[in-house]
Amino acid sequence: MPDNGAGTVSDGTTVSGWPSIDAGLLNPLGHGSREAQLTSDSAWLQAMVDAELALTRALIDAELVPDWMSAVCGELTNASLLDLAAISAQGRGGGNPVIPLVKHLGAAAEAVRAGASDHIHVGATSQDILDTAAMLVAHRVTAELISQLTDLAATLARLAADHRDTVMAGRTLGQQASPTSFGFLAAGWLDAVLAVLHRVDDAHEALPAQLGGAVGNLAVLTEIARTRQPDAPAQNTVDAVVHGFARHLRLVVPQLSWHTNRLVIADLAGVLATAAAVAGNIALDVSVLSRTEIGEVSERLGAGEGGSSAMPHKRNPVSAVLVVAAARQTPGLASTLMGSVLAEDQRPSGSWHAEWQPLRTLEGLSVSAVTGVASLAARLDIDPERMRANLEHTDGLIFSERVTTILAEALGKTAAFDVVQRAAREAFETNRPLQIVLAGVLASDGRDDALRSRIWDVFTGVADLGQSSVVIDRVLDRYRNQCAQADTAPESTRTVS
Amino acid sequence: MPDNGAGTVSDGTTVSGWPSIDAGLLNPLGHGSREAQLTSDSAWLQAMVDAELALTRALIDAELVPDWMSAVCGELTNASLLDLAAISAQGRGGGNPVIPLVKHLGAAAEAVRAGASDHIHVGATSQDILDTAAMLVAHRVTAELISQLTDLAATLARLAADHRDTVMAGRTLGQQASPTSFGFLAAGWLDAVLAVLHRVDDAHEALPAQLGGAVGNLAVLTEIARTRQPDAPAQNTVDAVVHGFARHLRLVVPQLSWHTNRLVIADLAGVLATAAAVAGNIALDVSVLSRTEIGEVSERLGAGEGGSSAMPHKRNPVSAVLVVAAARQTPGLASTLMGSVLAEDQRPSGSWHAEWQPLRTLEGLSVSAVTGVASLAARLDIDPERMRANLEHTDGLIFSERVTTILAEALGKTAAFDVVQRAAREAFETNRPLQIVLAGVLASDGRDDALRSRIWDVFTGVADLGQSSVVIDRVLDRYRNQCAQADTAPESTRTVS
Amino acid sequence: MPDNGAGTVSDGTTVSGWPSIDAGLLNPLGHGSREAQLTSDSAWLQAMVDAELALTRALIDAELVPDWMSAVCGELTNASLLDLAAISAQGRGGGNPVIPLVKHLGAAAEAVRAGASDHIHVGATSQDILDTAAMLVAHRVTAELISQLTDLAATLARLAADHRDTVMAGRTLGQQASPTSFGFLAAGWLDAVLAVLHRVDDAHEALPAQLGGAVGNLAVLTEIARTRQPDAPAQNTVDAVVHGFARHLRLVVPQLSWHTNRLVIADLAGVLATAAAVAGNIALDVSVLSRTEIGEVSERLGAGEGGSSAMPHKRNPVSAVLVVAAARQTPGLASTLMGSVLAEDQRPSGSWHAEWQPLRTLEGLSVSAVTGVASLAARLDIDPERMRANLEHTDGLIFSERVTTILAEALGKTAAFDVVQRAAREAFETNRPLQIVLAGVLASDGRDDALRSRIWDVFTGVADLGQSSVVIDRVLDRYRNQCAQADTAPESTRTVS
Amino acid sequence: MPDNGAGTVSDGTTVSGWPSIDAGLLNPLGHGSREAQLTSDSAWLQAMVDAELALTRALIDAELVPDWMSAVCGELTNASLLDLAAISAQGRGGGNPVIPLVKHLGAAAEAVRAGASDHIHVGATSQDILDTAAMLVAHRVTAELISQLTDLAATLARLAADHRDTVMAGRTLGQQASPTSFGFLAAGWLDAVLAVLHRVDDAHEALPAQLGGAVGNLAVLTEIARTRQPDAPAQNTVDAVVHGFARHLRLVVPQLSWHTNRLVIADLAGVLATAAAVAGNIALDVSVLSRTEIGEVSERLGAGEGGSSAMPHKRNPVSAVLVVAAARQTPGLASTLMGSVLAEDQRPSGSWHAEWQPLRTLEGLSVSAVTGVASLAARLDIDPERMRANLEHTDGLIFSERVTTILAEALGKTAAFDVVQRAAREAFETNRPLQIVLAGVLASDGRDDALRSRIWDVFTGVADLGQSSVVIDRVLDRYRNQCAQADTAPESTRTVS
Repeated sequence: MPDNGAGTVSDGTTVSGWPSIDAGLLNPLGHGSREAQLTSDSAWLQAMVDAELALTRALIDAELVPDWMSAVCGELTNASLLDLAAISAQGRGGGNPVIPLVKHLGAAAEAVRAGASDHIHVGATSQDILDTAAMLVAHRVTAELISQLTDLAATLARLAADHRDTVMAGRTLGQQASPTSFGFLAAGWLDAVLAVLHRVDDAHEALPAQLGGAVGNLAVLTEIARTRQPDAPAQNTVDAVVHGFARHLRLVVPQLSWHTNRLVIADLAGVLATAAAVAGNIALDVSVLSRTEIGEVSERLGAGEGGSSAMPHKRNPVSAVLVVAAARQTPGLASTLMGSVLAEDQRPSGSWHAEWQPLRTLEGLSVSAVTGVASLAARLDIDPERMRANLEHTDGLIFSERVTTILAEALGKTAAFDVVQRAAREAFETNRPLQIVLAGVLASDGRDDALRSRIWDVFTGVADLGQSSVVIDRVLDRYRNQCAQADTAPESTRTVS
Repeated sequence: MPDNGAGTVSDGTTVSGWPSIDAGLLNPLGHGSREAQLTSDSAWLQAMVDAELALTRALIDAELVPDWMSAVCGELTNASLLDLAAISAQGRGGGNPVIPLVKHLGAAAEAVRAGASDHIHVGATSQDILDTAAMLVAHRVTAELISQLTDLAATLARLAADHRDTVMAGRTLGQQASPTSFGFLAAGWLDAVLAVLHRVDDAHEALPAQLGGAVGNLAVLTEIARTRQPDAPAQNTVDAVVHGFARHLRLVVPQLSWHTNRLVIADLAGVLATAAAVAGNIALDVSVLSRTEIGEVSERLGAGEGGSSAMPHKRNPVSAVLVVAAARQTPGLASTLMGSVLAEDQRPSGSWHAEWQPLRTLEGLSVSAVTGVASLAARLDIDPERMRANLEHTDGLIFSERVTTILAEALGKTAAFDVVQRAAREAFETNRPLQIVLAGVLASDGRDDALRSRIWDVFTGVADLGQSSVVIDRVLDRYRNQCAQADTAPESTRTVS
Repeated sequence: MPDNGAGTVSDGTTVSGWPSIDAGLLNPLGHGSREAQLTSDSAWLQAMVDAELALTRALIDAELVPDWMSAVCGELTNASLLDLAAISAQGRGGGNPVIPLVKHLGAAAEAVRAGASDHIHVGATSQDILDTAAMLVAHRVTAELISQLTDLAATLARLAADHRDTVMAGRTLGQQASPTSFGFLAAGWLDAVLAVLHRVDDAHEALPAQLGGAVGNLAVLTEIARTRQPDAPAQNTVDAVVHGFARHLRLVVPQLSWHTNRLVIADLAGVLATAAAVAGNIALDVSVLSRTEIGEVSERLGAGEGGSSAMPHKRNPVSAVLVVAAARQTPGLASTLMGSVLAEDQRPSGSWHAEWQPLRTLEGLSVSAVTGVASLAARLDIDPERMRANLEHTDGLIFSERVTTILAEALGKTAAFDVVQRAAREAFETNRPLQIVLAGVLASDGRDDALRSRIWDVFTGVADLGQSSVVIDRVLDRYRNQCAQADTAPESTRTVS
Repeated sequence: MPDNGAGTVSDGTTVSGWPSIDAGLLNPLGHGSREAQLTSDSAWLQAMVDAELALTRALIDAELVPDWMSAVCGELTNASLLDLAAISAQGRGGGNPVIPLVKHLGAAAEAVRAGASDHIHVGATSQDILDTAAMLVAHRVTAELISQLTDLAATLARLAADHRDTVMAGRTLGQQASPTSFGFLAAGWLDAVLAVLHRVDDAHEALPAQLGGAVGNLAVLTEIARTRQPDAPAQNTVDAVVHGFARHLRLVVPQLSWHTNRLVIADLAGVLATAAAVAGNIALDVSVLSRTEIGEVSERLGAGEGGSSAMPHKRNPVSAVLVVAAARQTPGLASTLMGSVLAEDQRPSGSWHAEWQPLRTLEGLSVSAVTGVASLAARLDIDPERMRANLEHTDGLIFSERVTTILAEALGKTAAFDVVQRAAREAFETNRPLQIVLAGVLASDGRDDALRSRIWDVFTGVADLGQSSVVIDRVLDRYRNQCAQADTAPESTRTVS
């Protein structure tokens, strides 16, 4: 028996407690995948609990809070023991979920040991916990992106190497322009993926913890440090707490609270949106190349995939379409997050609160798009015969650029361009191959045999792909270097420079 | 015992089936309110089932499908009997959830009566069902908006009437400019709310059903009409189905399928975003006016509301902040939906799929913002004394415009502006009241007693509020007319003009 | 000799006075066309002057200002006599260009008659003039849109009628799906254009004047009315001025100043963006259909159009590409304008100032896109032979939906879907026509001759286009009705309801 | 005599040749400043000419083009000798301005020496030149940003140091929360400015040239290299051209053409938008703090600045408002540019063309915002007395956090929070100072004298600013380090890693 939120859940309460169950109905690409788990309410609640406990642990390390709190923390680590529905509901009162979380976590702590709640959320403000939790979620999301982008890069490297000589029509403004190769196209995709992987890597490494207290100056923590560690300079004690807090969470130590310096969020938004966009770019190419009339690539579909509810024959490029759809949703979300950089006062009246949902949605879409395209690339069927056949579409016009270049050596560039443009127009209008028309023109102009023969060969010989092979090697080198580096890179607590 | 999605649900399956439970943790404003239910996966699934069954019923009415399907439809109406998780998961294969829905619904129909599945989804394509479901969801969302905007209008009408004479500083570019009244401010809010209510009303009435078949020309339905009702013109039979379909759902009959004419969605997005924006505009004013140093209005808070996790004294304007936050998230979503108007082919490769989530999110935010501000307005405490006190802040400068106007009758406008500007500068620089400085200037300029006395009175008498009262009455009239119309408006099936 | 802004202009000053000459270099679509003139700085300055003079004239009508000001106004009407560069430069001081405009206009008035400057800008604030000027510019822009959309509609009506029976492949998700006709596609475009024309028409009729004074309550005008017309109720006198102001400008009389109720701007933005988007939608279809491998439509190019700097043979669909480009720029601008609805205080600190440039740019792009697509549609070459040839691409698969429908009458829908899906898969995998595979399957299943013959006919006979013709007639009717109405519609001063 | 574009320009042609003169009327912030020049049509045309000539020079260096072309290039460097209006007008034909530019430049070259046009635009496609020109413009724009951000940083460093002990109310959600200092606020601004400066620096250094030929594989250049330098490997010759091209322009050498890898543009957009946003963030704070009722900072205005057209006393925070307005316009533009990453084929059908105008506008706004806030910061008047006075606003509530912290040492955190919360509520409701209420509560609770005295001191003593001073020093150190690095950084041609 299914449970769609209309019945009851296991604890006997009615589903009105889960008013907005999102099973992925409207997000086919993301369904059941990691991103849904990584960015769910459960994941956020866990991250908030992680942040609170890391703070307490840092306070224990700094001897500002009694040792026995370690054991209490040990009992509180599993956020699923907290009442997510109640915390969510009570978030309305204070405008954010941390205020009720502190109460629920405090009550749970008291249940472990009386007095324990006094040592939770010490010196912190709500935004410290929520921002830090956001960074923890982002840390996991970017790790997933790195993993998927790395897989995608491997697939694309293989495609670039394998299809180095698979000639296809290069198209500009939708028109066949000059020959290229599928390997060169794949190398271009790979180059963009490596660039984005670099950015995601950097972003992953740069995510800072947040700890500033009510107005960002850590006044409460300073007061406590002075009182409880009177013999040490308060600055040292406070620094130890901030560093410990970040270290426990494997986040970067902030120089300064960033309550109203939201570059962290804007940068992250930019990286997430560009990751999705690069995925979307690849998917868009696949979508175009798999059009019925082009048919040069296709998505290898499993049973029941790519179908239509009305047309039994349809083999839709489903993944490509869904990845494009995901990518199209990201710039609007990124723009909202960029707008939140305008954050007034010591903590702002709305711009901060406007970040949470767009950030989460953007994270989900970015992982969906990248995961989707990684899977698509791995299932991409290339049809070299169709590519070759499509080169015939223009009856030789696609070779006009090369022909012009060769003629230019004899006639000069401007004259050659004119000759070929006229021949192309005549070929187009008389519906004859350019090869034939041009041979006639060159003959009547009295051009020498060697030139005429060389021009004839362009249409019948192997397509000239310029620097394609060189560039493919260059990109494959970059791929090998970047991945080699990644394998040996250590991960450690860092201070933002 | 709480269940955060980490345990099991009632049917014994683990919660990994609900990977992205959204309990409202990051949306304090919306938690537990109607919008979460109206736009949930359950609501969308129900709307899709409603659409499928309405189609079958319209086919029964048109005698294209046997009568006994009525009883089958009766057994299938409750979407919560379907397996939401499975349908969501299977949506990936075809790129949308309708394809698996048709299978699940067909299986359920077969369980009621063999052969019944043949009469479901007849003549329809996936987009017909999903677009129609989107319109049903939008129909309910806009109904909720209308209800909330109507409540809000009533509250604002009361505030405008009650505070007609509650003088406060009018502010421009953040500076006190000239006196106004709180009633006039509230009338301005009301005017915007009535305008938006009008738009939402229109949008609510204009939501069309979608029925076009694979490429929009209803070819299958036409074929079936010809075969099963050979004696009637196929056009009539098809028209009856389309009209019946819309009528069963209380949606507007489309002239033409709108698979790639997405003005419906773009318009809806515009209305939803402006409803949120008008709510945000009011909330932003409240947020400014409740600043500690201004303190002219405040949100009446219940126990446990408006608090801070760090500062025991805080009384934050929580609702205002959350409404502003909701409103700030909407333009980016609306821009995504506007971008989807560029939909190529007979049904597009991604732009349609990119609509679903932004539309749902925008609907939720719009209802959240409007509901939030309706609640805020109803709990708004006005502090007329503080308003009066704040008028003293500029030592008379706030009356400079009126003083200039009166002086202009004697000196001419340009000369008067110069006199007052110089006096204002002197008052500002010497830290003396404008009243005093100006009296000195006028005396030394030898102005007559009547004029000097009239100027003096400006600073001490009742503030002149210009056309405020007239305008308030005009807006209240509009309010009464618009609401009277609303009460008597019939609802019926309509054809889009 | 060219003048690129690097030399001197006619008054001998160097071009540094025109620091940002925009000759349309980066906007090939818009170059030299009406929109550049309609939205230029000169046009805005003229509109501001129009607004100032309309105010003075309304004051003369209401006998608040002496009759001789009529003659002065007559001398000031040509904004090109004002120093645009100086006014622009001085706008920085007060944050908007109206403050220096009033000074320059006042000086010009004094030059005509001493004391005249006292009767300019009476009772108005800067925003009154700039908002009103924005509405005048919008009035002209929407008029241009209406004219272009009307031309476009006529072209599309012709295409829809002419190509009613021009069969082409209907495509969904980039794949051939079922046959349709080019006339049906054109009718769909026309329907969207008519819908947008309706919206632009409404917007054009609804543009309000702005007159509120410093804080929106017309306090100064009220004071003046009381003083200068002591025998009349001030409300009547003020009303007369507001109505006269709007009437002189042919704008709608506002019920209330809309200094911080920016629905006017948000709605206008929505309409402009959707007009561009509908144009972009048509252009996108053209762009796809003119791909080399599809080649069903092409833009008729003049000499020197559609070329490439590198490839002599290229015939790029230039207009389609530029229209798509224009349309893609509009949602981001519309989102900025929607964000400006959050306008605090009696006049806001930045959100208003953030409207001017995006509104102007959006207006230009909207006119560019619509004008561009009107020109494109008028030069569209349709290739019915290529359309017919492309139907062969799938070796019969494109008829699978119809075949299924016919089979379903014998086998039931579910069984028919399965039969055809299997046959389609076999046809795809064995590279044989569906027609042949299916004939084999039906024979081996022992289906009767009549059915087999009917199925065979689907592949060889005339494509069934369902309700296409009916719908085309319906849209053409709508076209005729809407245009007939437009021709008889009166234009007059209106009060916003 | 002014020339507004309605008369004639110096060469006697009518102004219709300059249809869209933009004198800055609607952009008061940017008027006459560098950004208008840096991003004008003239600047773009010059950059395109620079790109074309750099290509020819690189070809000369590589001995692919005759030496005498050096002299020809020398004659063509000044773009103002070209006919900007004609080139702009002719851009429509091919969809971009490079096609006519090549013709005009070729004609100019022929005028210098017959045959010279053959050696211009060799191996390049339009997009190579326009993308490279965009990078040159961006190079100058980012240099200007770096210069302005550096000035701004210096001013903020001074403010942070000078106002280290200038106590002011820290505000969160618009409410006074806890004391902070103006120096700490300025240090926060500085930290964000330094972070953005870092990003702009990186962006400035990373701008790549573009050279790929028609489909990105440099086939033409390869052909020419093979023919004209038959003894050298073509790869080496081509590499020399690409490196030389970039070196002549001081741009980065691309590994691969980025015709459809638009991360370059998306990243640049992100940097420009965040620079504007950080400026906007500072301006928003200034705007709030200069509200009449707060009055803690003000913009030092010159004669004629900050005025109003209606209110002689107004001293508007004009720069702050205009900077906020500029910043609010950037996210929408950035979202358009992010959307252009979805670029299909070898060169796309619209997404590329949609980049030019938003990029230019974004560049202008970013420079405007940063320049505006640099000027604003340099003219910022701080009012320490008003800051101190405003701390009294809450009658002691602003000290509640610190009081709670101290009490917590005796009572435990939870109990202390409750005590202070109750006292705060009582103080608020009875309108008495928290100091008094709390003293009563502590006395009646029998707290000891030392504690009561310590609490009393909080309200009367020096505000505790926590780690403010430490953080200010840390940020000032960062400032000194970052600026020291900048002074010694070499600028050279680089290869993108």
